[in-house]
Amino acid sequence: MFEFTVHATSGRARTGTLTLPHGAVETPAFMPVGTQGTVRALSPSDLKAVGASMVLANTYHLMARPGEELIRRAGGLHAFIGWRRAILTDSGGFQVMSLASRRVLTEEGVEFRAPEDGTSHFLTPERAMELQAGFGVDIAMALDVCPPFPAERAEVERACRLSRDWALRSLRAYRGPGLLFGILQGGTHEDLRRASARPLLDMDFPGYAIGGVAVGESKEAIRSITAMSARLLPEEKPRYLMGVGTPADLLASVRAGCDLFDCVLPTRNGRMGHVYTRRGEVTIKHERFKEDLSPLDPDCRCPVCRRHSRAYLRNLFVLKDFSAPMLLSIHNVFFYLDWMKTIRRAIEAGTLETLQSPPEGKIPEASETA
Amino acid sequence: MFEFTVHATSGRARTGTLTLPHGAVETPAFMPVGTQGTVRALSPSDLKAVGASMVLANTYHLMARPGEELIRRAGGLHAFIGWRRAILTDSGGFQVMSLASRRVLTEEGVEFRAPEDGTSHFLTPERAMELQAGFGVDIAMALDVCPPFPAERAEVERACRLSRDWALRSLRAYRGPGLLFGILQGGTHEDLRRASARPLLDMDFPGYAIGGVAVGESKEAIRSITAMSARLLPEEKPRYLMGVGTPADLLASVRAGCDLFDCVLPTRNGRMGHVYTRRGEVTIKHERFKEDLSPLDPDCRCPVCRRHSRAYLRNLFVLKDFSAPMLLSIHNVFFYLDWMKTIRRAIEAGTLETLQSPPEGKIPEASETA
Repeated sequence: MFEFTVHATSGRARTGTLTLPHGAVETPAFMPVGTQGTVRALSPSDLKAVGASMVLANTYHLMARPGEELIRRAGGLHAFIGWRRAILTDSGGFQVMSLASRRVLTEEGVEFRAPEDGTSHFLTPERAMELQAGFGVDIAMALDVCPPFPAERAEVERACRLSRDWALRSLRAYRGPGLLFGILQGGTHEDLRRASARPLLDMDFPGYAIGGVAVGESKEAIRSITAMSARLLPEEKPRYLMGVGTPADLLASVRAGCDLFDCVLPTRNGRMGHVYTRRGEVTIKHERFKEDLSPLDPDCRCPVCRRHSRAYLRNLFVLKDFSAPMLLSIHNVFFYLDWMKTIRRAIEAGTLETLQSPPEGKIPEASETA
Repeated sequence: MFEFTVHATSGRARTGTLTLPHGAVETPAFMPVGTQGTVRALSPSDLKAVGASMVLANTYHLMARPGEELIRRAGGLHAFIGWRRAILTDSGGFQVMSLASRRVLTEEGVEFRAPEDGTSHFLTPERAMELQAGFGVDIAMALDVCPPFPAERAEVERACRLSRDWALRSLRAYRGPGLLFGILQGGTHEDLRRASARPLLDMDFPGYAIGGVAVGESKEAIRSITAMSARLLPEEKPRYLMGVGTPADLLASVRAGCDLFDCVLPTRNGRMGHVYTRRGEVTIKHERFKEDLSPLDPDCRCPVCRRHSRAYLRNLFVLKDFSAPMLLSIHNVFFYLDWMKTIRRAIEAGTLETLQSPPEGKIPEASETA
């Protein structure tokens, strides 16, 4: 059922196949984020059409609504959301930690009040495992403690200690059909990351995630922590960098040896009218695109670029038509997945070193009608 | 290029094929409404997936934004919106008339101030034809005057006279690639409808629409005006009933001899969470659907019902996820198109007389988990 095979390498970067209960995932892979199980503004058929092989869902949100019991009765999360390919769930820890004043952290777990309806909950490693096992996901995550940034060193140390204890409790408790990944914490402290890695590796998880990254640090810090953390994790197991990032971040992190990624950027930006292209970024509402009959990205083969112009999409967006966020999100997710494919091909062809990220910032005026 | 062939009849009802520049349309046919050229919340691929063969777009809205010039430069409306099948546009008259206090009606045309941006426009039959010809649509509509309801008889008489004069001017001016339909007005007055039909038939349009219906009259009045108007129009030409209606209205109007229909109900209701089913209507936000794992309509083969449950869709809707209006609209449009197919089959099988409309009003409690 589970297998991770590395095919080609280029420096620390590698291509591989991750075989999961709901299909094989070619790595390095990007997972679109479906908070409620569904990727906002994209239907499962849209996701299939743009080539997604795995999505990420949030345990925290699903636990609040519609709740574990209903998902279990539906036959699991795949059946409930109508997505037959692979699903990874986070443990809920990240969302709960971000509630800050509304939560109390103890050795046992974390007690919190849901902002949605004021109800009290107590999330423990055992409970997080029970939830994810009930969802029937392909990859579940251990419950961890993600310290905020910036944080006192003592706070990061405590987070590391709790994350270690909870990783072990998670491992012992998990009875789901999928794989359980451990999560490496340690903030920006190299020694804490190093010290945290040791016990985690001893627990012999089938895969590891790098957590606590991109929570407010500088771009340079993100990249150096990622590279350092990836080196601490075993070569033969998949490495998942949580919550990162831009197309350039993804390339840098693949070069550091990471295999799996998730990020809200393509969908959140799509909904807000910001589009990635191979020539730079397009903010669709801008006047300059009003009469621009070229596609969003003239080099793109996504269903939106094959059919629609910037002028048409701008018109929909300005008129607040529902179709606009949907079409722009489809393009952005396709763009991300296609970018990962480009990266995989470069690794296989031995050209990763010279691969350039798509330019960041506004698309140049010259490209407007190209 | 153009042909209307009647295949089977049942009373005044008939099935036929309407061959247009962008494909054949099986009649009786329902056209989803795409105000801005696009059907709100549905992409062209969604529309194809649910089997739409023709959509309706609004000349008035397209003229305001993005404007005629850009659509012409894009290569016409089909190219601009990315829809390769047939398109019908209304003439813009209905929208302009509904501006009431913001418009001045003369023999020459109608002057109005656009509520969107306060700009002044003068719409004449010649201008309406130029716009629709530039759009390159399959069916264009003559510019008419649709009187409000209720209206003084004198006002309806004037609307009939202007509609007649403008129909002739429209016919002389139209140079587009599609067909131009004349529109029969006359309010609820049988004698005015009758008197209006005569000159319109003399102009020998390739098809006729019944206008000024469902603008505020009772259901009984709508049905009797529709039946009476349809009888005034030639058997060998397609009859288009504008802006009507519910599934039961469609069945009644097919029985009266109408062939083409458009209505915002399936998309507008879908966006607001109201769903048609073969067992009655579902208001998805209701608590009773919270844990209901059955599809929206257990008898439906649409992509949404094949994949998703009421509980899942309710969860998306309550969370205001973008996917909810999209998925509910897809189901409703499929439902309407499927209902037309059922009607066509009943005509062919000679069973139209006993065909029952889907029940109106709330779905019974007993069907909840069927």
